[in-house]
Amino acid sequence: MKDRSLLMIPGPIEFEPEVLAALGAPTNSHVAPEFIEEFGQALERLRDVFLSSDGQPFVIAGSGTLAMDLAGANLIEPGDRALVVNTGYFSDRFGELLERYGAVVTHVRAPVGARPTLDEVEDALKGAVYQVMTVTHVDTSTGVVADVEELAALARRYGVLTVVDGVCSVAGEALRMDEWGVDIALTASQKAISVPPGLALLVAGPRAMEKFRRRKSPVANYYADWTNWLPILQAYEARKAGYFGTPPVNLICALNVSLKHILTEGMEARFRRHRALGSACKAAMAALGLGQVPVSAECAANTMTAPRYPAGVSGNDLLPRVKAAGAILAGGLHPAIRAEYFRIGHMGTANAGDLLATVNAIEAGLAACGYAFEPGTGVTAAVRTLALAQVDLR
Amino acid sequence: MKDRSLLMIPGPIEFEPEVLAALGAPTNSHVAPEFIEEFGQALERLRDVFLSSDGQPFVIAGSGTLAMDLAGANLIEPGDRALVVNTGYFSDRFGELLERYGAVVTHVRAPVGARPTLDEVEDALKGAVYQVMTVTHVDTSTGVVADVEELAALARRYGVLTVVDGVCSVAGEALRMDEWGVDIALTASQKAISVPPGLALLVAGPRAMEKFRRRKSPVANYYADWTNWLPILQAYEARKAGYFGTPPVNLICALNVSLKHILTEGMEARFRRHRALGSACKAAMAALGLGQVPVSAECAANTMTAPRYPAGVSGNDLLPRVKAAGAILAGGLHPAIRAEYFRIGHMGTANAGDLLATVNAIEAGLAACGYAFEPGTGVTAAVRTLALAQVDLR
Repeated sequence: MKDRSLLMIPGPIEFEPEVLAALGAPTNSHVAPEFIEEFGQALERLRDVFLSSDGQPFVIAGSGTLAMDLAGANLIEPGDRALVVNTGYFSDRFGELLERYGAVVTHVRAPVGARPTLDEVEDALKGAVYQVMTVTHVDTSTGVVADVEELAALARRYGVLTVVDGVCSVAGEALRMDEWGVDIALTASQKAISVPPGLALLVAGPRAMEKFRRRKSPVANYYADWTNWLPILQAYEARKAGYFGTPPVNLICALNVSLKHILTEGMEARFRRHRALGSACKAAMAALGLGQVPVSAECAANTMTAPRYPAGVSGNDLLPRVKAAGAILAGGLHPAIRAEYFRIGHMGTANAGDLLATVNAIEAGLAACGYAFEPGTGVTAAVRTLALAQVDLR
Repeated sequence: MKDRSLLMIPGPIEFEPEVLAALGAPTNSHVAPEFIEEFGQALERLRDVFLSSDGQPFVIAGSGTLAMDLAGANLIEPGDRALVVNTGYFSDRFGELLERYGAVVTHVRAPVGARPTLDEVEDALKGAVYQVMTVTHVDTSTGVVADVEELAALARRYGVLTVVDGVCSVAGEALRMDEWGVDIALTASQKAISVPPGLALLVAGPRAMEKFRRRKSPVANYYADWTNWLPILQAYEARKAGYFGTPPVNLICALNVSLKHILTEGMEARFRRHRALGSACKAAMAALGLGQVPVSAECAANTMTAPRYPAGVSGNDLLPRVKAAGAILAGGLHPAIRAEYFRIGHMGTANAGDLLATVNAIEAGLAACGYAFEPGTGVTAAVRTLALAQVDLR
């Protein structure tokens, strides 16, 4: 019997064998023709995954926080005003980061598990002249999803650039840079992009690039400075070598494989699959009597679920038992409610089998903790929801 | 017959199968006990590889330039004076980077292929009160090695912190943080550390950490800010989980394997092996009548060799032919002499067989370019030098 538990946290996730094989293959020179072709393809495919026709892709060794830093350091000039649509821990982080680069930051906040209303955001936009608005598409700390389409449309009406932290969303939640008028979207490799951690990924649209080009002050962060990377990325996409820092060759080859998988599935099919998995997981938790951090179905993400522990069950009791039963889950992250909830990632490669195995492991964990419920309740609810979704889950 | 050429550039290099296997293994949670143990071990081993008893190790997703940025952004406060012991392209980069963080930078320069004398450096140190001196241990653009031991001793006499860019040296050239009084040493994974590219590695000694702790201004670079990473790295070393950004799990597992290999060989044996390989490669090039960028044997690195093309032979002619004969080499990088020389890396995992195969491929390439020499001259010189070195080259 397999003795490896499924990695069902909100990143890193389960990765495909072909992606892992590319990662572990012998390393080529970063200026070899074969690698130049791989890197060039990955840049082109990234644009397709972000649904951007004319954005500039950036692929740089680093974590998701570096991707946020690439946006903040290059876009913000001291004195710029930024509005943070705050839905949790990672929205707080974006605000702190923008302040580091001299932005005057206003947060539009909501209670934990909720999201600011469009009216609240519009009121803030009316209150001052902002250059940039940030939106955390899915806040990994709470599983709250923002309405990026409406928010970006609103920002556009006020002439404000929209920056989407899509770390827990890109290639899972629907995110359409062109159609929605998103100016920057960013993510990290280990989430729905489905490549082990180590790559910061960002696509910057024309308005964002124009703001960058018109900067009067130098970018304060040397490593993140697009001035250094732009000619290199343009060179690789034109199938020429360039050098600023050594690109993470193995990770980029793995990225290229995963982007090919993603585009072969197709973005619309992928969005539908994540919606089905998200609904099924939430239906299972509800059937088991577990509450959730997001205060409504509308503001709950498709890429992850954040259930609350039932009365009498703690994370220290439950999570090791779920792991022993086959699924590795994550504890709480938001400081205000850290001990009250756990987190399940079901993004990227996850299929129906992974989800059912995870719900089954949660049932086993709950039973071992002495929580009373009819065995199979969660799994049955998940199966029924998946059947209703009529989605090809491979 | 194997149809894969050896990767003998100054990084990335040939990696061990066990390291690549760790890189390509299924990813664990970044807070799983097994990974916490691996990360903790890697941090402890890094200190041993840097020959530092009390330094703080940093392991962060990024390129070698991020490692330089970690040093510059955290150490420099606006108005600090920094002295750059300049031996090439990467010394220029360090100066530019320090200026980004507000340093007033003075370069002590030397002609391309040479290095400033200790007297020249001391004259500069007498001329102003500096807080920081940077030394590029091996400038990958020229293959010039700096005398870090003497330079660090000199800086100490003037109360100046020594920062060593060891990207092309750490775990290859002798570098002894404690014994030589080096305050920061840094590198990237893809060089003599022998792990595919994607990790910035740095060890900061007590005086450097003290300067950081006494900062009056915030660190200008958010991602590189030690304030964010220090508690996390301390937690992992104490075998506890911590979170700032998702650590690059697979790369860190691969790092831990390679550091174990390095320490099993032993640092002194490793330094001797690199000296033997460096001498043998240089003897081979000299026997073939090729000059070298470093102006003397004393200032030529052990981790790489930078031979000049012989008259009538260009890089476009030679390098593809060498590759076809079994070894991938790198072209020139220093802007002043880019077309005049090429670069051979012989660090990390390289053994006698790799070096002889590389010299043999260079001979084949030179012959195909019509260059006149007695076949076997280079290989024979290398073999004789290796025999004299009496080093176990596995």
